[in-house]
Amino acid sequence: MNQADNIDTLISHFLEHDKKALARLITLAENDPEIARIISSKLRNHSHNSYILGLTGSPGTGKSTLINKLVEFLSDKGFKIGVISVDPTSPYGEGAFLGDRVRMREIILEPNVFIRSVASRGSLGGLSKAVFDIAKLYDAYGMDYIIVETVGAGQSEIDIYNLAYTIILVTVPGLGDSVQVQKAGILEIADILVINKSDLGGDFLKINLNMMLESYTRERGWRPPIIRTIAKEGEGITELFQAIQDHREHVERSGQLNEMKRTHIQKRIQVLIESLLFKQIIQKISMTNEINKATENVLSESQDIYSAVYEILKPFFDKIEKIQ
Amino acid sequence: MNQADNIDTLISHFLEHDKKALARLITLAENDPEIARIISSKLRNHSHNSYILGLTGSPGTGKSTLINKLVEFLSDKGFKIGVISVDPTSPYGEGAFLGDRVRMREIILEPNVFIRSVASRGSLGGLSKAVFDIAKLYDAYGMDYIIVETVGAGQSEIDIYNLAYTIILVTVPGLGDSVQVQKAGILEIADILVINKSDLGGDFLKINLNMMLESYTRERGWRPPIIRTIAKEGEGITELFQAIQDHREHVERSGQLNEMKRTHIQKRIQVLIESLLFKQIIQKISMTNEINKATENVLSESQDIYSAVYEILKPFFDKIEKIQ
Repeated sequence: MNQADNIDTLISHFLEHDKKALARLITLAENDPEIARIISSKLRNHSHNSYILGLTGSPGTGKSTLINKLVEFLSDKGFKIGVISVDPTSPYGEGAFLGDRVRMREIILEPNVFIRSVASRGSLGGLSKAVFDIAKLYDAYGMDYIIVETVGAGQSEIDIYNLAYTIILVTVPGLGDSVQVQKAGILEIADILVINKSDLGGDFLKINLNMMLESYTRERGWRPPIIRTIAKEGEGITELFQAIQDHREHVERSGQLNEMKRTHIQKRIQVLIESLLFKQIIQKISMTNEINKATENVLSESQDIYSAVYEILKPFFDKIEKIQ
Repeated sequence: MNQADNIDTLISHFLEHDKKALARLITLAENDPEIARIISSKLRNHSHNSYILGLTGSPGTGKSTLINKLVEFLSDKGFKIGVISVDPTSPYGEGAFLGDRVRMREIILEPNVFIRSVASRGSLGGLSKAVFDIAKLYDAYGMDYIIVETVGAGQSEIDIYNLAYTIILVTVPGLGDSVQVQKAGILEIADILVINKSDLGGDFLKINLNMMLESYTRERGWRPPIIRTIAKEGEGITELFQAIQDHREHVERSGQLNEMKRTHIQKRIQVLIESLLFKQIIQKISMTNEINKATENVLSESQDIYSAVYEILKPFFDKIEKIQ
């Protein structure tokens, strides 16, 4: 059996909602960009308009427990849910050290639920290629909801903005209220704010979040609601789902959903073009000898680093000038 | 006065330890790569062999307070210290929301101390160009110690490995012990482990850290010590400094320090080459029309995203093939 036959068989199983075929296709797409292309082209007309949620927050805010409960809630309502975890500290990954986190895996056994962890960063920063490929596969598989979990501690986390339609920021009382949202630009892109572990307090955090919200002039016609949850008790999940539905209705009715879909595709094409071009050029040009020579020059201070680099690049710049 | 004169004047003030000239040179280098090159070349023979420390840890572990106390300690001993904060939640940045964090700025007033915050990520992921430029300027200025603070929550944080000689990982009890070190690869690169806020506990965390250390086969001839601190009380800072000195002696004696310096320069040259080449090519090629057309095709599902991208890139790939 050749590879193409193999993929065709897998895809037909996949379209009959075989979770194993889904898992296998994800792995194949991750390992070989050429196969990712083939799969992408074969599934072109199978979109189910999955609704994509982004969920982000600092480590220790209980994102995974919250997702666990939200997924249970959605699954009980009969929805199909695909989770993509980009959080390196997530218990869904292979890195779960302590036994007490293993219970989180229970939801994986639900027939309507599929969970996949991916490496945290793409080669050019931002969400990795795998996240987009998996989201596309989930969509073709027929997921009603796709939940993308990222850890919100750096500027690049706002890249979730380029994939999700509703972004949920999870905070907890006592972690340094401002620390959790400050500077990273996360508050500007959040559509729903969650105060998790709200049995530990949260009144002051709520005041703070409200204050910070005031300082953003929003032109989206949407003021992010602040939902209090105690994820480990399942409290506040109904309210969170209601907020998701409200925001979804808002973006659908206002035309923002369509606009987001267009922008997401456009950005994605741009990123793919840049990364593929880059890879092609780096493959073409090997400069090991030049780099080694420059390293010794800089180490001995006979040349500064920028002069060394420009000396290496000069001939290539001249050639690139001639392209087109 | 033309720019070159201006820079020469600044540099002569800088070499007389004028903090304002240092601040100005950093800003100039940040804003204009061409000036960064000029400064770099003019300061080529002014290295002071600053010892570079990397300090990383999750948000909420008290990194900034710890740095504050460590800097005070080093300054009291008569050392010159330069701090670079790559942590978007650091109180040294402009993003400090709450008044109670402002007290952290006190150390800025010390004549021997200089602190600078930078944006968290470079365009290609990893530490931004500014971090390396500032470290170089600190070195030429005559800093004895350079401390680089990053927030350790993603895989890319391990990039501090490409700049620092001694890496300190800060943890706290109760934040989810495994969460703080798991998967991110930080434990593999840490030379000193700190349990901060150890008045809140930490026995279990210490056992856990020790356990995790066991699972790494180290060929560095160094077992990371675990130091307990209560930064806000200044407790454990002497022990932390002792550990830094021990590790420094270890890398100096074993020849690892020289090897690190060589590797850091080599990696840095590679990154500069790639990012400059990339920028040059992206500038050369504008494909707005092609991208817009492809976006509509993918949105309407008449083309899948990879086919669309390869169709755009094909002619460029053919041209790149002809380079060299």
